[in-house]
Amino acid sequence: MATPVYTPFVFLLLLFQSGVWGFPVRQTPQESPTCGYKSCHATKPGMLNVHLVPHTHDDVGWLKTVDQYFYGDRNDIQHAGVQYILDSVVDQLLKNPDRRFIYVETAFFYRWWKQQTDDMQNTVKQLVNEGRLEFVNGGWCMSDEATTHYSAVIDQMTMGLRFLNDTFGHCGRPRVAWHIDPFGHAREHASMFAQMGYDGFFFGRLDYQDRSRRMVAREQEMLWRASESLTPPMADLFTGILPNGYNPPEGFCWDQSCDDPPIRDNPDLEDYNVDDVVTRFLRIAQAQALVYKTNHIIMTMGSDFQYENANLWYKNLDKLIRYVNQKQSNGSEVNVLYSTPSCYLQELHRANLTWPLKGDDFFPYADSAHDFWTGYFTSRPALKRYERISNSYLQTCNQLEVLGGPISRKGPFGAGDSDTLKKAMAVAQHHDAVSGTEKQHVANDYARRLANGWAHCQVLVSNTLSSLSGSSAPRVYCEHLNISVCPLTETSKKFSVNVYNPLARPVSWPVRLPVNGTAYSISDPKGKAVDSQVVPVSQATAAVRRGRGYAVNELLFQVQAPPLGYSTYSVSLLQNGPPSPESSPLPRAPKTVQNKFLRVTFDPETGLLSSLSNLETQQTVKLSQNFYWYNASDGNNSESIQMSGAYIFRPNTSTPFIISKTAKIETLQNSVVQEVRQWFSPWVSQVVRLYTDSRALELEWTVGPVPIGDDLGKEVISRLDSSINSSGVFYTDSNGREVLQRRKDYRPTWNLRQSEPIAGNYYPINSRAYIKDDKDQLTVVTDRSQGGGSIQDGSLEIMLHRRLLYDDVRGVGEPLNETSDIYPEGLVVRGRLLLSLSPPATAADTHRPLAQEVVLQPLITFTDGELHPSTRLEFSGLQAVLPPAVHLLTVSQWDQDSVLLRLEHQYQASESKEHSQPVTVNLQKLFSTLDVLGVSEMNLSANQWKDEMTRLDWKAESGEMPLPKRGGDPSVWEVNLKPMEICTFLLRVRQR
Amino acid sequence: MATPVYTPFVFLLLLFQSGVWGFPVRQTPQESPTCGYKSCHATKPGMLNVHLVPHTHDDVGWLKTVDQYFYGDRNDIQHAGVQYILDSVVDQLLKNPDRRFIYVETAFFYRWWKQQTDDMQNTVKQLVNEGRLEFVNGGWCMSDEATTHYSAVIDQMTMGLRFLNDTFGHCGRPRVAWHIDPFGHAREHASMFAQMGYDGFFFGRLDYQDRSRRMVAREQEMLWRASESLTPPMADLFTGILPNGYNPPEGFCWDQSCDDPPIRDNPDLEDYNVDDVVTRFLRIAQAQALVYKTNHIIMTMGSDFQYENANLWYKNLDKLIRYVNQKQSNGSEVNVLYSTPSCYLQELHRANLTWPLKGDDFFPYADSAHDFWTGYFTSRPALKRYERISNSYLQTCNQLEVLGGPISRKGPFGAGDSDTLKKAMAVAQHHDAVSGTEKQHVANDYARRLANGWAHCQVLVSNTLSSLSGSSAPRVYCEHLNISVCPLTETSKKFSVNVYNPLARPVSWPVRLPVNGTAYSISDPKGKAVDSQVVPVSQATAAVRRGRGYAVNELLFQVQAPPLGYSTYSVSLLQNGPPSPESSPLPRAPKTVQNKFLRVTFDPETGLLSSLSNLETQQTVKLSQNFYWYNASDGNNSESIQMSGAYIFRPNTSTPFIISKTAKIETLQNSVVQEVRQWFSPWVSQVVRLYTDSRALELEWTVGPVPIGDDLGKEVISRLDSSINSSGVFYTDSNGREVLQRRKDYRPTWNLRQSEPIAGNYYPINSRAYIKDDKDQLTVVTDRSQGGGSIQDGSLEIMLHRRLLYDDVRGVGEPLNETSDIYPEGLVVRGRLLLSLSPPATAADTHRPLAQEVVLQPLITFTDGELHPSTRLEFSGLQAVLPPAVHLLTVSQWDQDSVLLRLEHQYQASESKEHSQPVTVNLQKLFSTLDVLGVSEMNLSANQWKDEMTRLDWKAESGEMPLPKRGGDPSVWEVNLKPMEICTFLLRVRQR
Repeated sequence: MATPVYTPFVFLLLLFQSGVWGFPVRQTPQESPTCGYKSCHATKPGMLNVHLVPHTHDDVGWLKTVDQYFYGDRNDIQHAGVQYILDSVVDQLLKNPDRRFIYVETAFFYRWWKQQTDDMQNTVKQLVNEGRLEFVNGGWCMSDEATTHYSAVIDQMTMGLRFLNDTFGHCGRPRVAWHIDPFGHAREHASMFAQMGYDGFFFGRLDYQDRSRRMVAREQEMLWRASESLTPPMADLFTGILPNGYNPPEGFCWDQSCDDPPIRDNPDLEDYNVDDVVTRFLRIAQAQALVYKTNHIIMTMGSDFQYENANLWYKNLDKLIRYVNQKQSNGSEVNVLYSTPSCYLQELHRANLTWPLKGDDFFPYADSAHDFWTGYFTSRPALKRYERISNSYLQTCNQLEVLGGPISRKGPFGAGDSDTLKKAMAVAQHHDAVSGTEKQHVANDYARRLANGWAHCQVLVSNTLSSLSGSSAPRVYCEHLNISVCPLTETSKKFSVNVYNPLARPVSWPVRLPVNGTAYSISDPKGKAVDSQVVPVSQATAAVRRGRGYAVNELLFQVQAPPLGYSTYSVSLLQNGPPSPESSPLPRAPKTVQNKFLRVTFDPETGLLSSLSNLETQQTVKLSQNFYWYNASDGNNSESIQMSGAYIFRPNTSTPFIISKTAKIETLQNSVVQEVRQWFSPWVSQVVRLYTDSRALELEWTVGPVPIGDDLGKEVISRLDSSINSSGVFYTDSNGREVLQRRKDYRPTWNLRQSEPIAGNYYPINSRAYIKDDKDQLTVVTDRSQGGGSIQDGSLEIMLHRRLLYDDVRGVGEPLNETSDIYPEGLVVRGRLLLSLSPPATAADTHRPLAQEVVLQPLITFTDGELHPSTRLEFSGLQAVLPPAVHLLTVSQWDQDSVLLRLEHQYQASESKEHSQPVTVNLQKLFSTLDVLGVSEMNLSANQWKDEMTRLDWKAESGEMPLPKRGGDPSVWEVNLKPMEICTFLLRVRQR
Repeated sequence: MATPVYTPFVFLLLLFQSGVWGFPVRQTPQESPTCGYKSCHATKPGMLNVHLVPHTHDDVGWLKTVDQYFYGDRNDIQHAGVQYILDSVVDQLLKNPDRRFIYVETAFFYRWWKQQTDDMQNTVKQLVNEGRLEFVNGGWCMSDEATTHYSAVIDQMTMGLRFLNDTFGHCGRPRVAWHIDPFGHAREHASMFAQMGYDGFFFGRLDYQDRSRRMVAREQEMLWRASESLTPPMADLFTGILPNGYNPPEGFCWDQSCDDPPIRDNPDLEDYNVDDVVTRFLRIAQAQALVYKTNHIIMTMGSDFQYENANLWYKNLDKLIRYVNQKQSNGSEVNVLYSTPSCYLQELHRANLTWPLKGDDFFPYADSAHDFWTGYFTSRPALKRYERISNSYLQTCNQLEVLGGPISRKGPFGAGDSDTLKKAMAVAQHHDAVSGTEKQHVANDYARRLANGWAHCQVLVSNTLSSLSGSSAPRVYCEHLNISVCPLTETSKKFSVNVYNPLARPVSWPVRLPVNGTAYSISDPKGKAVDSQVVPVSQATAAVRRGRGYAVNELLFQVQAPPLGYSTYSVSLLQNGPPSPESSPLPRAPKTVQNKFLRVTFDPETGLLSSLSNLETQQTVKLSQNFYWYNASDGNNSESIQMSGAYIFRPNTSTPFIISKTAKIETLQNSVVQEVRQWFSPWVSQVVRLYTDSRALELEWTVGPVPIGDDLGKEVISRLDSSINSSGVFYTDSNGREVLQRRKDYRPTWNLRQSEPIAGNYYPINSRAYIKDDKDQLTVVTDRSQGGGSIQDGSLEIMLHRRLLYDDVRGVGEPLNETSDIYPEGLVVRGRLLLSLSPPATAADTHRPLAQEVVLQPLITFTDGELHPSTRLEFSGLQAVLPPAVHLLTVSQWDQDSVLLRLEHQYQASESKEHSQPVTVNLQKLFSTLDVLGVSEMNLSANQWKDEMTRLDWKAESGEMPLPKRGGDPSVWEVNLKPMEICTFLLRVRQR
């Protein structure tokens, strides 16, 4: 079977075989005779071959919302209408079989496809089968690389590629990854693309110094070895840098949005210009050939939302090809052809050369000396957090759809689905979505979509929990617990709390509920009483609620939940009235705060942190922390001087301004938690929090509204200054997975001339960053993507919030100045940094599970009143806890009888003595509610059988040669995972 | 024969029959079953039917040149590419047979057609045959109505319609005239359209007060009786005013150039808006129906250069029609359909109503109280003159092509043609060409085209004259005689002067040649000596030559030329040296200047004219003349206050500033001419000139460079102030033909609220204007189109030149501030006004032939040295002089064996006792060099047999009923012409 889609026929066989091995049966690959590499136009070996690639770059939201872009609405903002682009391109492809087009963003293609007639769908299938219309990249969107989490990227790629696969089969599978616009490139993305089966990868943006060197050295095409853990060539990806970003060469833009002169080839009319056009083209082609290695070069003939009227492009390209190639009869050695990235890639592969090896990543991206695109690592921190927690919601929703079976989608609470949230999450991965570089109204649209998606999921979750628990009591969701708002808990005298844990291991989790009582009794699923505390709501929290809740107290207790399962706790009001005086915080800093794992000391003068100790390992570092702001450059009100904006971070001085040298302090200590509440200014406060059972110190920061009455844009950081001797080095994760070393004022692959001492040392932090020396490693786990750097040894700073007064002239056309109806004077943002201190050799043992718990946090739901006695209070979807190294990355319904499963080894090679080892999981014994009848391994994006992945092989100029592929697993049911491996399976299942 | 095109078969028959009558044989009309009125969609009688008319308005030059518009070049100036419009519309028409499109400008369609494959041509023919693509108007361009001459308009219409007829036959013949953009509407245009066989006429622009009244009265559709001479319904034209100019209703523009919301009909996506769109549309349709008479209304769905991406329009229109008509099942009584102007017209005709009658015209056009579009009547006076003289060149070229036969196109001087000039003249008729409302670079392009056309004609003229004269001596053309530049005459000691007269009667014409000798002998074709004079070149002329000539003298003599023929004069230098002292002008004003027809007196104090007398009729009027300038409004530098510009005349005070109360004077009097040279300022001078044989007094004005150092825009007038008691009334011609009465602060069809006392009383003058009382009529014949008015009784002012500092915000985007390489400090313009004084009853006897001589002036060519004795010195192409009332409007080669002939009665009914009488011409005895073998009468535009013209008949609310059509002529060879009639014939000819 060419396409990894189960057909009824296959399943029939599976049923017969399920008692034995459960292998799905394959059909013989029926390659279309003309699509893919076979459909490429012939080139001329002795000539310079110029591959013209007609393409459009369709942002899945940016200046307009994704649906406005699709329809061509709000053309007053930007002229762009994707429905018309696809209409027009198909029409024009039909006019000349030589023409080619590539399409990238499935979010748009899907919308268009659904509106077409059968005739048109058949026409398009024909074009795809003949390679005239080729999909590249093919995810739902072209994801951002700096601020996305790998889990959500894999999901969105899977969704887009699945649609192409379901619709077009083999010929719809993209061979090439295509990230022409993202603002810098993550190694983890390259690793994922390799594992998704792409033969190559092209992009447009990289540091201008890097590019210059590569042009001179002809190293614009390379082999990216994108993992230090995975065995080559598993994460090797051929990577090419496009010559003009993703634009056509100067003077050759024939879109309706361009003003370049068309080819005027009628000698009877004015201004015949064929000779001029041909001469200019040959000059450009020859210049380009000088900075690439082979006698093939690529030209991207298109740009943002181009080809709405494809006739303009194609009519002139037809003429260009005709007239340039006509010169061959006069001795010209340039051959121009319609092509695609894969056809160009095929020629590079045929060249049989060796390519330079790349091991690091392409961050940060600067397009000029003072233009570092490191601001967007933090831009729109509230959206970034909402996106991250929505991923957690979605994984939970996916799991409960599988565990609940069909009733989840149509149960007692109505029709629910995970699709809406899947699509909302998929568009949110776009490089102008979670990146924070969209217009405000578009950011609002992304948030609205996520909220709507979650509403659909809530119905599904309620259905499943009702089914699993046997209780059809209405289930209440409280999405504002972070600001202590939950109408049910604020008013109810008796309610239950269901804690669903999406991880494959049990978790313990501190619950904080807004209440108005002073004492509650809590019992766990077994009826055992649970220790709880009632403390007053902090002033900081009360200040940001803005009338959305009236709780005076918070009820604190620790809950446990089983793997892929839930526990239900019952809560009863014992005593009403104001908070008890003894629960109130004391207006002074404690000398120390400690639990059995950690001790924290404070400077009594300033109220700031002064040290952190790991009591288990007996290590202590000096550690202070405070808040600062960089004064955003305003470009002197001139467009020639770069200002800070949604994309770009440019402080106008390298020394940040301190918010306050001292903090006003309150201390609260009880059996559940110890909190030091720090108040730095009306717009910056923090709670330093240590839960009784936690190995991490929580810094819950609240920043905003950032004041701008002084007309100064502000970029607010939290800075940790420690005694760790970090020697100019710190570490950041890539898309939440592997960690890369960062060295100050240094790039691994070229001699950096540093021109921005702060912004040029910022890197994206998706889930964690750390500094270390021989003895101590201080790790910070974040709750969202943020930018950060280590400007001084021992120091680690993380940018939390940005409020700017100028647009940074990269297209968005708005200053990043977020307000909302509720916060008209500027957004208030709250988040958490989790600190751990460990010896370097065992640090991962703490930060890997810690980060995992932040990414996939428990879902807490409520029911009012007494539960029916028959209610099942505890449930686990797994037969057993998975080994600690294994993360259950994906459990998602694929179709009626099958489930998509991804198992991940969450440790890097050599990262942990204990955990960086191969580990085996038995798939048949995985789920408690499902029989697994068959299993098939897929590529990472689940659009190809694993054993049919035959990627082009590329030779590196240096480095070890790729090892042979690993052998098969010992049994089809036994999966052996090595560090950082993700295995993707399609399981045939039956509900028990 | 459905189409008036001779086929070989027809000509074969003709050859047999030519001895008898020479009638061309007709084929039986083979109407396509579906084009024309038969192709209209059904409407719903009980409903309001909304006719949606998809259309594009493609200016044949405006902000860009015609070829830039065609290719889509210079899109930085304006996004517009007609090649893509036609590509796109054809594609989209093919997608849905319900769709309709109309196309207007054949200059563009022709360019496009020539580039299409046979397949595409056949596809388009099919669309045309099915009425899905319909041509309306169909001339080469959409001509200006205020500044064009009927002769050139008929030519350009003929050329466009002929191409459509040759290409598409019957189905290519437009039924509707369509002047949606011209800035006011001439009665003569309506008359021509009627005679061209159009069933109706639609336009967009009219005075805002007129429009308001017509909306209230439901008189936006009317019957225009466009001639006071022609028998109804010969010049009756049903005329409709479009509801939104030529734009779609607000909110319903779906072109790529518009930002209106598209129809978003997918409920799964954001912003579903079908209900909103339908509601808004119904509201607009119902409001529009209130101001029209029938249950049919029209909406123009398009605008300037729209439909480049027709998919946007049609996709949304398809949806609009679907969703609006779906409401009918819920009781809606609105029915929307794709339609064309002719389909709409057919429904109006079927309504069988009576319509208000219109007798005057639609000038001047004001779109607001202070926004009178009366500036363009004069804008670009040099271009306006160049266009007019190019028409004279073209008629001469056409005639000599016929008279010379095939040798004219390929003779001793190479390949010549009239086509290039025909096309150049045709585009110059466009309403942003001769109107002067184009950008400067476009004005330059029109002039360049005319010059190039004339260069092609010069070869043709040389070939023919060589053939007719028997002399192959190289022929020299001097195009700068108006500024006394001609290298040959300046240097040659012996040369000959050929004077070709394109009129059908002999003319006498004063020749002025730049020379450097002091005495010459001149002999006429019969060898008789001709009186001549040598006078010094005036200072004013010397000042404007700018190094292009060095003649110190001018040689003056009177020549005669036979009808449609030439005379050759021989000139020999007698004496070299400086001008003789006695030839020099005297530095004072004469008391009188007179010849046998006229006497002029001057005020010795001021040097200005003081009276004019007709010596034949013994009548005298007081008459003074001077130059003034209006200070152009600068809009106070604000866009909210209208400024003067290329379109709009708005003086900021009603009192013009005088250039000088007195003139410096030189007087020159000799046997050929008497001149009073007046010098008013460094930039205004004039020669008052009376030739010995002339019934007209010539005022040759020279204006420029208009100074703008004072930052004041200036609009320069020549004003005649007389003792004639004109009672607030004056008269202007319409497109050079019939004359209309103009009354100050008055419009014949509504109660004018006058808001601009000067600009609101300006009217276009194409060839003449006059004031009169019972006794005296003072007529001014102009040499180009100009604006003018009669602000005071007895006064007549004519605007000569305009130089402005601001754009008037009507789109051209440039101030009208003409400079050139030769005149970098501002254009200098020279021209002539010819004055005649007569009793009103006989005034036409003078001004009709006088204006004719100015429009079709003799062509003077030179050969150097002695002529060969065998040279034929005199030639006439006519067998006999035509009667004085008859003007030979067109003599032009049609195809190899046929000639297009137009005979015109050039007098209005009752205008002249002597000449306003029917007159008969015999076609067989017309030409001296051609046998006329057959004759067929055509409609005015020569795209339909006259006897097959079956126009829709319309009933007027008032006025006499149309008389039956005139009977046939007494013989097929005898043409009987009534006042203002033009008869058009296709002659089958054979060179003798």
